[in-house]
Amino acid sequence: MGQLAGAELFTVVPEGSITTPKGFTAGGLHSGLKKSTRHDLGAIICSVPAAAAGVYTLNAFQAAPIKVTKQSIASSGLLRAVVVNSGNANACTGEQGEQDAFQMRNHFAEVFAVPEEQVAVASTGVIGELLKMDKLIGGIDQLPTHLGDDRNAAEQFCQAILTTDLVQKMICVQVEIDGRAVHIAGAAKGSGMIAPNMATMLGFVTTDAKIEGTVLETLLRQVTDLSFNMITVDGDTSTNDMLVAMASGLAENTSLTEAHPDLAKFVAGLRHVCEHLAKGIARDGEGATKLVEVQVQGAVSDEAAQAIAKTIVGSSLVKSAMFGADANWGRIIAAIGRAGQPVQVDTVDIALGSIQTLQQSKPVVFDEEAALEYLKGDTIIIHVDLHMADGAAKAWGCDLTYDYVRINAAYRT
Amino acid sequence: MGQLAGAELFTVVPEGSITTPKGFTAGGLHSGLKKSTRHDLGAIICSVPAAAAGVYTLNAFQAAPIKVTKQSIASSGLLRAVVVNSGNANACTGEQGEQDAFQMRNHFAEVFAVPEEQVAVASTGVIGELLKMDKLIGGIDQLPTHLGDDRNAAEQFCQAILTTDLVQKMICVQVEIDGRAVHIAGAAKGSGMIAPNMATMLGFVTTDAKIEGTVLETLLRQVTDLSFNMITVDGDTSTNDMLVAMASGLAENTSLTEAHPDLAKFVAGLRHVCEHLAKGIARDGEGATKLVEVQVQGAVSDEAAQAIAKTIVGSSLVKSAMFGADANWGRIIAAIGRAGQPVQVDTVDIALGSIQTLQQSKPVVFDEEAALEYLKGDTIIIHVDLHMADGAAKAWGCDLTYDYVRINAAYRT
Repeated sequence: MGQLAGAELFTVVPEGSITTPKGFTAGGLHSGLKKSTRHDLGAIICSVPAAAAGVYTLNAFQAAPIKVTKQSIASSGLLRAVVVNSGNANACTGEQGEQDAFQMRNHFAEVFAVPEEQVAVASTGVIGELLKMDKLIGGIDQLPTHLGDDRNAAEQFCQAILTTDLVQKMICVQVEIDGRAVHIAGAAKGSGMIAPNMATMLGFVTTDAKIEGTVLETLLRQVTDLSFNMITVDGDTSTNDMLVAMASGLAENTSLTEAHPDLAKFVAGLRHVCEHLAKGIARDGEGATKLVEVQVQGAVSDEAAQAIAKTIVGSSLVKSAMFGADANWGRIIAAIGRAGQPVQVDTVDIALGSIQTLQQSKPVVFDEEAALEYLKGDTIIIHVDLHMADGAAKAWGCDLTYDYVRINAAYRT
Repeated sequence: MGQLAGAELFTVVPEGSITTPKGFTAGGLHSGLKKSTRHDLGAIICSVPAAAAGVYTLNAFQAAPIKVTKQSIASSGLLRAVVVNSGNANACTGEQGEQDAFQMRNHFAEVFAVPEEQVAVASTGVIGELLKMDKLIGGIDQLPTHLGDDRNAAEQFCQAILTTDLVQKMICVQVEIDGRAVHIAGAAKGSGMIAPNMATMLGFVTTDAKIEGTVLETLLRQVTDLSFNMITVDGDTSTNDMLVAMASGLAENTSLTEAHPDLAKFVAGLRHVCEHLAKGIARDGEGATKLVEVQVQGAVSDEAAQAIAKTIVGSSLVKSAMFGADANWGRIIAAIGRAGQPVQVDTVDIALGSIQTLQQSKPVVFDEEAALEYLKGDTIIIHVDLHMADGAAKAWGCDLTYDYVRINAAYRT
């Protein structure tokens, strides 16, 4: 899987949403888990058993919903629905938390008359507090009248999964497989505790492609490594991260396998969906005023490039400089140097957008005014060329701002 | 080397300084490298060739003064002096930067009539700009009239090595070796770009102990791993970090070796000096309002405990919560879980000071008012017990504040 998604292989569907792929409905509502009146409970439902795959947090303390969802997907590889709450992560809540997550799943299955092991659950919010089960159960009971297959219904779902996110993140692309229109869509939430290796991030992919769950899982992992695992907001990794994909198969293509001639189109579409959501999470990081993209090339391997790109985009000093629109490339080279990867000390180029600041490791006199103007923009691209070999990678993050501190100094209260 | 320095093995010298050990003079002045009128050039000089040792940054882009100092110490293991400037790091300055660092060393050697290979140089400040050599040379010419062997002279040196530090960091302890009083003292600067594995940190240790340079280096490395390498301000590691120790031998003890019966006293004293300076750097981190100490015990090994302690103290979310005086232990357990070390998910205790918040991985109902009161203090201790084995470690850091962002959004300009 090269560094460039094949843009010609798919088209973005204007106004497309997670309910655009055939078979999916979605919705969201306020159940009372959040103190405010914001939505806090949502679901995506498939009219048929969908081939399913999941990718999960690597944090050793995995929250209860992670265990339940893993068990559901493992049991048959199929999902009829995913139900999600925000406002409470149901993490570090012990046996009671696990019972609550199972009850969340089972009550939903009862209400919607689907097999309980075909329901995934996800939670996001505060760690260490028990779910208010009365609110949750009451909310699930109301969900059937809050579902729809239009964009509005999908947006209600997106609202329901937000915590400190400011904007919804959703996209739908179309690819042609066996001459048929296949849709791949996704929705995500992010915001804080976002780091490489699955962030505090919930992601949901719907598609009407016909594909085996095992193939879907392999592709999902590959694409995650180049998208969600290449973003960082603050270097923290949550206990609740989960990316779940459901494939209804209603596009009726011949089943996608490694050998399918149109597989590359599906992968390109899936990658675009995940990359779009990942960049959306980075741009909407807690307190962020801009998206920072780091492009590393010329490294000894893609893995080395990835490590370097992540180190730069995760550096508090680089992030602060981006907030201040300060072309402080010294902090960028310091980050390159501590990434633990092979570098040549005298062949490094650094540019901010089109403004070269370091060439062959020597400072370039550049137009500070032009740099200031560029860095004041809402998207900054940092280019690094190590001139060693062909390893390349992209990573995304955001600036470090007063608002990040404000939000996180007072989240729980 | 256990986790507890033997407090009974040394005494802190009130009003002691880096000029308290016999043979040392020091001083500092404003040469014009900084735009302000603050000191920016300092030196420590020994009246005899001192056994010397250095520990350096692991950043791949090591600044020019690092190369020069390494060469000096390697040539004979002896130093007569170290000369330091602030305001400019002389890093990423290519061949010219290296020539400048050598000229800084050699001009100093000429002025003070000492062998050039017995002079160490250190620089701290902005990366990527050439040193103003006329200012530097002029400053070195004035240094001889700015030296002294009293505390005031030592403080002038401390002033000269500061960048965004707010307070000087200096200490002196006394140990008894062969029945003789031996002094060990240190001065340091830190502030930003401070991370495990030697921070943007300059540290200078003086002692009148008689000790071989190679023994001194071994001890310095061991002690650094438990002090300077256990602090983090922002996870960044600079290009210029350097810790240099000079031992005049004028206390006239029998030379310290691994077999010397009083070696433990010297190690305890050296460790206290380094730990005191490291904590001082953490407390004085950019924008910090408090010192955060993390004590981990019950880990599978000291190394595992170190990794976990560093991950907690480096977490932006934990740091923000400490700034906000929010007893958000969920972020602490999330940090433990992503440290990449063995943990048992159901045996973790967490306490903030004496306030237990998690016991056997279960939330404890605690007095929020008391927790708020404790977290408003200027020193926070986070206790973690994993209940697995005997591995233990301490790490130090600070809170993440609006001022960190303010300082680093506008440093270069």
